Amino acid sequence: MDVADLVGQARDGSPRAVARLISLVEDASPRLREIAAALTPYTGNAQIVGLTGPPGVGKSTSTSVLLSALRKEGKRVGVLAIDPSSPFSGGALLGDRIRMTEHATDPGVFIRSMATRGHLGGLAWATPQAVRVLDAAGFDVVLIETVGVGQSEVDVVRLADTTVVLLAPGMGDGIQAAKAGVLEIADVFVVNKADRDGADATVHELEQLISLSRREIRGRSWRQPIVRTVAAEGTGAEDVVRALAEHRTWLERHGELSLRRTTRASGEVEAIAVQRLRAELGELHGGDRLAELARGVVDRELDPYAAAETLIDELRRG
Amino acid sequence: MDVADLVGQARDGSPRAVARLISLVEDASPRLREIAAALTPYTGNAQIVGLTGPPGVGKSTSTSVLLSALRKEGKRVGVLAIDPSSPFSGGALLGDRIRMTEHATDPGVFIRSMATRGHLGGLAWATPQAVRVLDAAGFDVVLIETVGVGQSEVDVVRLADTTVVLLAPGMGDGIQAAKAGVLEIADVFVVNKADRDGADATVHELEQLISLSRREIRGRSWRQPIVRTVAAEGTGAEDVVRALAEHRTWLERHGELSLRRTTRASGEVEAIAVQRLRAELGELHGGDRLAELARGVVDRELDPYAAAETLIDELRRG
Repeated sequence: MDVADLVGQARDGSPRAVARLISLVEDASPRLREIAAALTPYTGNAQIVGLTGPPGVGKSTSTSVLLSALRKEGKRVGVLAIDPSSPFSGGALLGDRIRMTEHATDPGVFIRSMATRGHLGGLAWATPQAVRVLDAAGFDVVLIETVGVGQSEVDVVRLADTTVVLLAPGMGDGIQAAKAGVLEIADVFVVNKADRDGADATVHELEQLISLSRREIRGRSWRQPIVRTVAAEGTGAEDVVRALAEHRTWLERHGELSLRRTTRASGEVEAIAVQRLRAELGELHGGDRLAELARGVVDRELDPYAAAETLIDELRRG
Repeated sequence: MDVADLVGQARDGSPRAVARLISLVEDASPRLREIAAALTPYTGNAQIVGLTGPPGVGKSTSTSVLLSALRKEGKRVGVLAIDPSSPFSGGALLGDRIRMTEHATDPGVFIRSMATRGHLGGLAWATPQAVRVLDAAGFDVVLIETVGVGQSEVDVVRLADTTVVLLAPGMGDGIQAAKAGVLEIADVFVVNKADRDGADATVHELEQLISLSRREIRGRSWRQPIVRTVAAEGTGAEDVVRALAEHRTWLERHGELSLRRTTRASGEVEAIAVQRLRAELGELHGGDRLAELARGVVDRELDPYAAAETLIDELRRG
């Protein structure tokens, strides 16, 4: 495999090459370093959009409708669907993917599920690299869609330039429960199923939360818009696209885009370094040292901090 | 504050001292090292039980009923309720805690919510330390109850000697979706709301999954029991207690308890070491180095791997 060739093919629009590159990233290929270097000159152009919300809100349909609206504007769109590897959510993902098949034959769309079961910290580490692949391959928008609501997914959503939080009426005290957390991560609110009873109440409740929070980022305030959609009928997607564009303009005008991207890159670099250090800890003394120290902890011969210090000292001595 | 005094008070049954120690652990007190050392001689006696399941299954009621049943056998029980810090689940936790108030005045019960919003990897790192506090304080059983279903919570449940997975009838294709993931982590299945329609079908489905999987751990098979409960009426809790005791006996008889605990201690030592290394990475050059390298990545002057390598080299040079 020639990495430069592969990157070239991905940039020429080969979905196979894009898929191959993402697989290499997910599988932590020994050539990751080389791949990252080859991608770097072509990165920085895509708008990274996070899309999240509680189960049952119509996330998958909304993604699909948003895809269509972005395509109408001629944008190429890459989608990363994050599977949190929850033993309880594994099934939902498949259904989502099947619903996405309407875009399967469109060469301007690339959809990929990121499955990272069992890789501790795997999402935090592999997702930014996959974003990098899609960015370098020339996708104008990269949508990171999270299934479910765990902390690791929130962290992943924080990779985005713009985060869309989907809500729907009739979710009980969902918004009340969500409160500060949702306000914290949302740049754009979408109230889906807006034709249902309770939509006005949901919008009203959100408006109150937003005006209470009066969020200011470094003195420049962005008032989160609330967009109503009925994704199942394709209604409102253009308004979401407009809100995304407005937020992008705001980010650029206030220097916020580059700040967010620096934060993202910090996380990315840190995750790579931590992953590497973790691997080195595991490999000490041919891989036996950690287990040996752990047995000492179980036998009450040493406490876990003393064991960790020993491990770090040995790592430093290399 | 005298750490030895505090540990002594905790062992004498002071809930204030236990709470104080857990707070120190959660807040990453500079005296953590000292606290861990003081606790170590008294650890290793508690049975660590994980309790998890999808939302709506009656987890909180089940925990409460299980608590009562364990108390009837004279066991002192500590509960750690894990809040995954999801922006969408924050509200549920409060409700759970309120329902637990019936145990609030019982000196043989200690209940604590672990809230770690914003601490990356915080749960993985703080929870085992909190377990250690409760273990050293002389609780016979430590219940780790997770709210929700994210990966980080599954990781936390893996801290347990015995993991109970709660399911309920009428959860749609919940079990089908769960499949291998749930079988992987469950030592005991509880089908709650067993008086409802569909309970037999749920039990039957589980039985099929279990017989299909024929799980063997290092050649010694443990057939996961399925216990029926109606937690809202207090029915079946004694059967859960019996299943826990049987699993504990099995673990001890097959040397599996010490293996699990070594695995747990490995994770604990690794998490402490990684946390420390992460902090050191962040502190390089007075805390500016990571951001500086990140800006280089955003400006496409270097790729994230090259940046991570630079960071690690500088860490080693210390």
